Amino acid sequence: MLTVHHLGKSQSERIVWLCEELEIPYELKCYTRDARTILAPAEYKALHPIGAAPVITDGELVLAESGAVVEYILAKYGQGRLRPGPEDANFAAYLYWFHFANGTLQAAMGRVMILNRLNLPDDNPLLGAMRARLGLAFAAVETRCGEADYLAGDALTAADIMSVFSLTTMRYFLPYDLGPYPNIRAYLSRIAARPAYQRAMAKGDPGMALLLS
Amino acid sequence: MLTVHHLGKSQSERIVWLCEELEIPYELKCYTRDARTILAPAEYKALHPIGAAPVITDGELVLAESGAVVEYILAKYGQGRLRPGPEDANFAAYLYWFHFANGTLQAAMGRVMILNRLNLPDDNPLLGAMRARLGLAFAAVETRCGEADYLAGDALTAADIMSVFSLTTMRYFLPYDLGPYPNIRAYLSRIAARPAYQRAMAKGDPGMALLLS
Repeated sequence: MLTVHHLGKSQSERIVWLCEELEIPYELKCYTRDARTILAPAEYKALHPIGAAPVITDGELVLAESGAVVEYILAKYGQGRLRPGPEDANFAAYLYWFHFANGTLQAAMGRVMILNRLNLPDDNPLLGAMRARLGLAFAAVETRCGEADYLAGDALTAADIMSVFSLTTMRYFLPYDLGPYPNIRAYLSRIAARPAYQRAMAKGDPGMALLLS
Repeated sequence: MLTVHHLGKSQSERIVWLCEELEIPYELKCYTRDARTILAPAEYKALHPIGAAPVITDGELVLAESGAVVEYILAKYGQGRLRPGPEDANFAAYLYWFHFANGTLQAAMGRVMILNRLNLPDDNPLLGAMRARLGLAFAAVETRCGEADYLAGDALTAADIMSVFSLTTMRYFLPYDLGPYPNIRAYLSRIAARPAYQRAMAKGDPGMALLLS
């Protein structure tokens, strides 16, 4: 039996959403962050040596790392859904946006988030450079969301499932303004209207979907 | 014709190495970082909106993002090599280490690298926390390199091609000591002995392979 270990307000929301989109059977175990440190509780860190979300278990297997977990579930339970293959015209776009999520967008947010904790003066050049890189990542998503309904084309794919966390729940850790990005906001409205996304948020992080508004 | 646009001392070394392991035809175009800023030159940034390495071109396609480029080349030119499939006992390990490379290891290095630029006191708690996370990532690789010759098992896979950059060339940007990690050092010796790795470094970054010693 597939078990999704979901740490509230974390990248493991991707996995809950993926399972809901695929409508596959899974057990959901929810864990809450420490209220003071906002870190994962000890029982979550004990699941896997790297101590970070997401983690799934499937029989003897314990697997972490968003990209790996998504690819594993798609290969084992996806029956070819949510993943354009090499023969599909959207294959390269799918691969790009799938890997862009953690390779560029989330990485750029992580660097700004870290610098924010140091209370640097607003004109600090390093902070400026990292904000500029994050702006470049947002601009790339904005352009793409004006070209197609979903990141890999007309239909939702795992590339969206990898990316939406950074555009929604990450605001809990790094306040940012989507005001200048109307295409991203329209894209998030399309996501928010999906019953599977609504079920995932209701089960995993009740109240968090409000971040979309 | 597949063209690899290689920015010296960058993640695009993965792509040169991948092509050499696969022994596929490709054109290599090399670009040099600005000597003062160590950033990519304008002609490299002009290749793709995100302005970062790697970038490949293949006919009309322009593709960036390491994970996407590696998956694209494997799917289009790999004939099933370097990528264990779902039926393989090493499938989950392959996925984990493939995505760990940029999702955890490189991300942890990036945060420490950014903080290093601020010349914080050595006992800064944020710096300490980020160094601890990097230590956890190194420890995970060290454990794995003691279990198997390569990250996904007995044979080299694209998981190694994703990970080795962070364990070698990244030292150009973030000095770190592999002294406490004998299994990682033995693993890197196995990598350094591979003719395809030697060819890739000789073509892409002559002299950089010295970082292994």
